[in-house]
Amino acid sequence: MTTETGNSARIDLTSEEIFSAHEGGKLQIGLTAPLETKRDLSIAYTPGVAQVSRAINTDPELARKYTWASRLVAVVSDGTAVLGLGNIGAAASLPVMEGKAALFKQFAGLDSIPLVLETTDVDEIIETLVRLRSSFGAVNLEDISAPRCFELEARLIEALDMPVMHDDQHGTAVVALAALTNAAKVVNRELSSLKVVISGAGAAGIAVAEILLAAGIADVTLLDSRGIIHSDRGDLTDIKAAYAARTNPRGTTGGSAQALNGADVFIGVSSGTIPEETLEKMSEDAIIFALSNPDPEVHPETAAKFAKVVATGRSDFPNQINNVLAFPGIFRGALDAGARRITSAMKVAAADAIAGIVGDDLAADYIIPSPLDSRVAPAVTAAVMSAVDKADHSVR
Amino acid sequence: MTTETGNSARIDLTSEEIFSAHEGGKLQIGLTAPLETKRDLSIAYTPGVAQVSRAINTDPELARKYTWASRLVAVVSDGTAVLGLGNIGAAASLPVMEGKAALFKQFAGLDSIPLVLETTDVDEIIETLVRLRSSFGAVNLEDISAPRCFELEARLIEALDMPVMHDDQHGTAVVALAALTNAAKVVNRELSSLKVVISGAGAAGIAVAEILLAAGIADVTLLDSRGIIHSDRGDLTDIKAAYAARTNPRGTTGGSAQALNGADVFIGVSSGTIPEETLEKMSEDAIIFALSNPDPEVHPETAAKFAKVVATGRSDFPNQINNVLAFPGIFRGALDAGARRITSAMKVAAADAIAGIVGDDLAADYIIPSPLDSRVAPAVTAAVMSAVDKADHSVR
Repeated sequence: MTTETGNSARIDLTSEEIFSAHEGGKLQIGLTAPLETKRDLSIAYTPGVAQVSRAINTDPELARKYTWASRLVAVVSDGTAVLGLGNIGAAASLPVMEGKAALFKQFAGLDSIPLVLETTDVDEIIETLVRLRSSFGAVNLEDISAPRCFELEARLIEALDMPVMHDDQHGTAVVALAALTNAAKVVNRELSSLKVVISGAGAAGIAVAEILLAAGIADVTLLDSRGIIHSDRGDLTDIKAAYAARTNPRGTTGGSAQALNGADVFIGVSSGTIPEETLEKMSEDAIIFALSNPDPEVHPETAAKFAKVVATGRSDFPNQINNVLAFPGIFRGALDAGARRITSAMKVAAADAIAGIVGDDLAADYIIPSPLDSRVAPAVTAAVMSAVDKADHSVR
Repeated sequence: MTTETGNSARIDLTSEEIFSAHEGGKLQIGLTAPLETKRDLSIAYTPGVAQVSRAINTDPELARKYTWASRLVAVVSDGTAVLGLGNIGAAASLPVMEGKAALFKQFAGLDSIPLVLETTDVDEIIETLVRLRSSFGAVNLEDISAPRCFELEARLIEALDMPVMHDDQHGTAVVALAALTNAAKVVNRELSSLKVVISGAGAAGIAVAEILLAAGIADVTLLDSRGIIHSDRGDLTDIKAAYAARTNPRGTTGGSAQALNGADVFIGVSSGTIPEETLEKMSEDAIIFALSNPDPEVHPETAAKFAKVVATGRSDFPNQINNVLAFPGIFRGALDAGARRITSAMKVAAADAIAGIVGDDLAADYIIPSPLDSRVAPAVTAAVMSAVDKADHSVR
């Protein structure tokens, strides 16, 4: 057993304590007011509740004020890409979704319900959530496989007209941008001047590329399992082809060695490994984010030989890139502001807020706050709310 | 303002206090264990949760043990028959479903989530819930219009293979049987010997007929808006035709006057009224349950001129027939016992348990416990669990 204090403490967990902690599940329902007297009963249920139902029937906007739906996130998965376990199905994904709901509550005071789906058909998932849309106010998509996740998220945003975000994409992207913003300061570089290589063009890789472009970084190159993504390749999916047109401005071709030659930043979200010799060709003062979990693309100690700043997804090394820094505050901000979309501007604002928490304590081994830092979610909430007004005009 | 203590105190509620109590909704999510340290996070979320997901993937039965689904009730409505308000739609029904979920928690410690549906198509409702079935362990159907509710409930029980109950039908029926069991004692009659007339052949009326038959009452007659339901009528729906064959053993025809001539019991679940002169023809020591809300079929003071025992659905008269006496304990018992069905035997056992709470305090104005009596739900839970074993053999 290790302590929980050090940033680099590895926590040894036994199966017994994990399973024991999961018995009966991790969530429960609570009441917002006592329900003990006849009077309480007459207000919360019949006959009093009829007045509230009648009012909402007359003015549907009142549902926002008088039900929990407007502060409720549906945590939705079809179980197709659960953690590192792959397609394990709806029932087996439920403990992860309960955990996610617990994090929403703990970090942002936000209520959420896990809804796991026995279908993997995009049309059917959309149809199901549209039928249920009066039951909640936002949707956190989780652990849904690429490339289906891109189409699902895009169509669901239109169909539901409420905040919808696939966290495996955008949560990772927001926290990566926050970390990169601070890493750039550590090496005294302008964020926008960095040459960035992203290894992995799945859910997270595409979203990281998107947010880096939105943050003003012009030189972004994506790698998939067959090498650099460029417009001359004939084997690209629609989404990869779209990013081929928007990334790789120098038109490089080849594999990771060619991509990393002279690059400033490597961001790994690939579940693969990166050969040590390719990292040698990166620029001086390089930045390496090896985010695959539990096995980073390169061990952080090896990465440190070639880079000034190193981050991983693991809690037992410095600089943990963890989605929990982003999603609670993003959804809380979007819901509190009554936003109908989670826009790029809101995501970039969230990243800036996370980066800002580090402040004067900034150092090569402290570019990102701890996942348990209670200052983060309120700061993200506030930043997202401030970014809503501008952003929302464009969609109304 | 009146006091809340007396059984017949009318509670005056202002719109202000009702709406104020509904701001933000009536439910919230809670955690079953603290989530404050890195260790907590590693157990409830990554990496610990992966072990639980992997285990459920290998053995789906473990979902019952390690998620909240097996103790979670989905409170489902399409908003077509909400209280006395009719078809007001999904969003406007949500405050009622939140109230229902609050009652589940308060009276049986049971967690539940409201799911309101934007479709009224039976096929689509079933399809939606089947896709979501790993997310919960039981379904309480609520405020769904007849005759769709009969088909929906029957098909959903088969499709989901978990406890499913339309509370507007069976909750009312169970509590009515409990009250009738005690009313029979007050008038020194055997329950099974009573001649019963049920006015109203909608969701509640059909279910009351069903449970009275299951409890051994042979002489049950149903009335709809066109009069006595009998096999020679050509205007019956399928469900009414089925009950025409199983009720009305003396083959009476006509209207309420003919039905009530010599009857021992009148149970009104019709939203209509019953002429005073028809009640005159009931037997000596008659029993009248005028359950329409907020306006009983006959005012209880008028009913008392013709009957020894009178009950209503209202909290401001003695003998309130309120579903909350039944559904929390029925679902808790079914879930705790791992039942796959809520059978007639379980419902009759629930009614017996409710009736039993009254005990030696039995009187003409006390045939049923108060909705706030905290002894009821545990007694119902225990009775339902005891009734499961026998019942469940027939479905496994």
